[in-house]
Amino acid sequence: MPESFDQLLAKVNEIHDLAMAGSVLNWDREVNMPKAGTEARIKQMTTVHKLVHEMSTADEVGELLEAAEADTARADYDSFDASLVREVRRNYDDARKLPSEFVARVTETSGQAHQAWVAARENDDFESYSPWLEQIIGLAQEMAELYGYEDEPYDALLDRFERDTLTATVRSTFDALKAATVPLLDDISASAVDVDDAPLHQPFDVEAQEEFARYAAEAVGYDFDRGHLGTSVHPFSTSFSRYDSRITTRWYPDFLSPSLFGTMHESGHAMYEQGTGPELARTPLARGTSMGFHESQSRMMENMVGRSRGFWSAHYGELRQRFPDQLGNVPLEAFYAAINKVQPSYIRVEADELTYNLHIVLRFELEQDMLNGDLVARDVPEAWNAKSQELLGVTPPTDRDGCLQDVHWTRPSFGYFPTYALGNLYAAQLLEAAKEADPRIAPELHEGQVSALVEWLRENVHRHGKKYPPTELVARATGRELSPDAFVRYARAKFGELYGV
Amino acid sequence: MPESFDQLLAKVNEIHDLAMAGSVLNWDREVNMPKAGTEARIKQMTTVHKLVHEMSTADEVGELLEAAEADTARADYDSFDASLVREVRRNYDDARKLPSEFVARVTETSGQAHQAWVAARENDDFESYSPWLEQIIGLAQEMAELYGYEDEPYDALLDRFERDTLTATVRSTFDALKAATVPLLDDISASAVDVDDAPLHQPFDVEAQEEFARYAAEAVGYDFDRGHLGTSVHPFSTSFSRYDSRITTRWYPDFLSPSLFGTMHESGHAMYEQGTGPELARTPLARGTSMGFHESQSRMMENMVGRSRGFWSAHYGELRQRFPDQLGNVPLEAFYAAINKVQPSYIRVEADELTYNLHIVLRFELEQDMLNGDLVARDVPEAWNAKSQELLGVTPPTDRDGCLQDVHWTRPSFGYFPTYALGNLYAAQLLEAAKEADPRIAPELHEGQVSALVEWLRENVHRHGKKYPPTELVARATGRELSPDAFVRYARAKFGELYGV
Repeated sequence: MPESFDQLLAKVNEIHDLAMAGSVLNWDREVNMPKAGTEARIKQMTTVHKLVHEMSTADEVGELLEAAEADTARADYDSFDASLVREVRRNYDDARKLPSEFVARVTETSGQAHQAWVAARENDDFESYSPWLEQIIGLAQEMAELYGYEDEPYDALLDRFERDTLTATVRSTFDALKAATVPLLDDISASAVDVDDAPLHQPFDVEAQEEFARYAAEAVGYDFDRGHLGTSVHPFSTSFSRYDSRITTRWYPDFLSPSLFGTMHESGHAMYEQGTGPELARTPLARGTSMGFHESQSRMMENMVGRSRGFWSAHYGELRQRFPDQLGNVPLEAFYAAINKVQPSYIRVEADELTYNLHIVLRFELEQDMLNGDLVARDVPEAWNAKSQELLGVTPPTDRDGCLQDVHWTRPSFGYFPTYALGNLYAAQLLEAAKEADPRIAPELHEGQVSALVEWLRENVHRHGKKYPPTELVARATGRELSPDAFVRYARAKFGELYGV
Repeated sequence: MPESFDQLLAKVNEIHDLAMAGSVLNWDREVNMPKAGTEARIKQMTTVHKLVHEMSTADEVGELLEAAEADTARADYDSFDASLVREVRRNYDDARKLPSEFVARVTETSGQAHQAWVAARENDDFESYSPWLEQIIGLAQEMAELYGYEDEPYDALLDRFERDTLTATVRSTFDALKAATVPLLDDISASAVDVDDAPLHQPFDVEAQEEFARYAAEAVGYDFDRGHLGTSVHPFSTSFSRYDSRITTRWYPDFLSPSLFGTMHESGHAMYEQGTGPELARTPLARGTSMGFHESQSRMMENMVGRSRGFWSAHYGELRQRFPDQLGNVPLEAFYAAINKVQPSYIRVEADELTYNLHIVLRFELEQDMLNGDLVARDVPEAWNAKSQELLGVTPPTDRDGCLQDVHWTRPSFGYFPTYALGNLYAAQLLEAAKEADPRIAPELHEGQVSALVEWLRENVHRHGKKYPPTELVARATGRELSPDAFVRYARAKFGELYGV
């Protein structure tokens, strides 16, 4: 290894260590910290992030990069050295594009917008939030210009979360997805099958829920020897290294789904991090490659594994044993139907597997309009409701159940939403490819076992970390570009069977 | 406030935030982290500590300090500005005295010595550890020369933990303490009173222990709204701000004392941090002033409050209610005697309140001999055993129960041990002064209430943080220099009564 690369690596390692310290501060804040500690903790986190930013964008890094680029110019594209230099170069160039004055303005405005949004949502008062949303749109437009783009401004923002993925690609993908989903949804609505999800809404002892959540996390392949399950208001997953990749869950005493499927969801995220190659440690490559790919891992474990008949045929007994009063009289088939009930609704985070993507398409389309100046803040509620009716067949009764429901637009992070649906599409495409590549996988899943699937994911997705952008990784793993086809096939088969359509 | 001070303060705030991030990494490691995460976590902590050191010793800080010193030269000695500049100056000068080559050597050698010690203790094989101890002694001698001293080398090391406290002072204090304790111990040994501590060694449900530990922590004044109780192998207390000051405990299923008194001990530490003045936030002044003063707060809550008759007359009912099978037939007086049983033994961490100090005197005397070159590593076991016989009347059967029992001598941190006993002396002296100053305190304590005592501690000790060195703080709070007299009076009264001597 040339000396220049070693020097760059040493610097990158330090920056990464410090960034991980920032993640620990955040995890601790959500899981353990007494509320009174908030103010001091925010200052600690701000200082750590500031130092990370200063260190990452220092001229010194630019010089080390140039030398390392020259020295690794002939290194194999797939090598650790070449991959790291590529990634550091992109991060460095991106970070230097945003003047610190702009970054400070984003932080400041987003903080205030967040407060305004909390109040507006509580009072169902969009008007009071409208000027803030206008400012957020302005910041997003400014950010797009600062980053730069070739085709359209949204490309610049999408690239932050889904590298090298073009808006046009997502648009045509989502259009095809929409074209397939909406009629299927119509058929389901018209179907005579009535699914009852009341069994999920009963009193469930929280300690027993936690016990089963641990069981389920292990059943989908999460490694507790390199993990930790905590409790937080908003469930999340975070990793400080492949040897310490954590999940959190929330517990509702009278609703089983959030802890159960939330835990499997976060397990999928955390398993991605647990699977990154050990040689990538202490570098920005030791991470899932994109938000969409990350979501593919969580959605696969939550839905394609965790809401499958195979999984529950193997594990329903364990669940029933813990809740005999609640589930003793609920047959496996009724439980399977309940956890897969399709029901168009207003709220994204409560949406079922099928309608979820439509919630995302709605946001993706509105974000583009806002960014392009075709939709101003004050017109958002009307546009939202019209699209909701068009896509989901329902109109939210209030803005609180509509355009005020998500926290995302308190920051100029347009481009984040689409990654949720991309995750579903990647998941289906990966699962299909995995089953084709390894004939053990389908029968194992049918028996509720995941080892061969996880092995395939480790080999074809996890271990690469962030070495390849999602566009490249999906092609390497599945032999194809991103496409909605696998998801559409999956959804038609699963929900067609369930609803007899 | 002059601009130079503001600039210094901003820098100090950042360094402090980062140091707190390091503390969070450590807390999380002890409480939540999966063991597999150790290697990555050590690297993260090393990076954070390195950055803290680099930032603290940067020439820039020296320049800011000089300007701030000039600008605050006429500021009141007690003011925040003057106090902070004093403290930063001392830390800066101290830190710059150790070349980074030396610091690296200490870290490296201590790490290896620690491993060697673990093996040596396990195998009761002092000989294998002897060369490491020799190296540690050498490092301590080198460190003393680097820091510098006026009277004797031990002063330089003691000053790290107990600022401005001279070895000669501690020596004469401990001599007086020894002269009073040894005869009292002889009397107790000869006494006809036989205390039975078997009630403490029974099966105690761990969940009920935790419930009562929380109750006891609150009863001694710990504020859970600004705290957190976790579980760790080695109990400790740590604070990230006065609004987030945490304790940990360990739970033994068949021994009540560790969780019970350990929790009160750590509560005392944490309350000190919770009581530091809010204006000291994000600076090195937001800390207890010394190890000895810190220990005075923990020992006071553990022993002088937590093992008092008054405390248990108020709270024994609560404990009994949780453990009716274990304590239903144990009268208050028998419980009080059990938790105060005096019994010379080999192991410091298991020692009772009275013999504990003698364990410290032993170590203090040996450390001086080692540092002065009067005792070489290979002769330590013999010297240890002789002193143990002289002070405690017992000779450890093995080195594992003797000179290999503590982790402290795997680092060149001579001067740390005496602070444990200084804590006991400060505690007694503070408690006496508090009772004199506020007539509510004694009757309240008699009823198991601590509010007036805590109020006095907040006012006279806690709020000052690290503004004054311990030598100065004890004089301000009690009107006297450090002295063993209050402790001797306290011990004679308490144990004289218990053992009828």
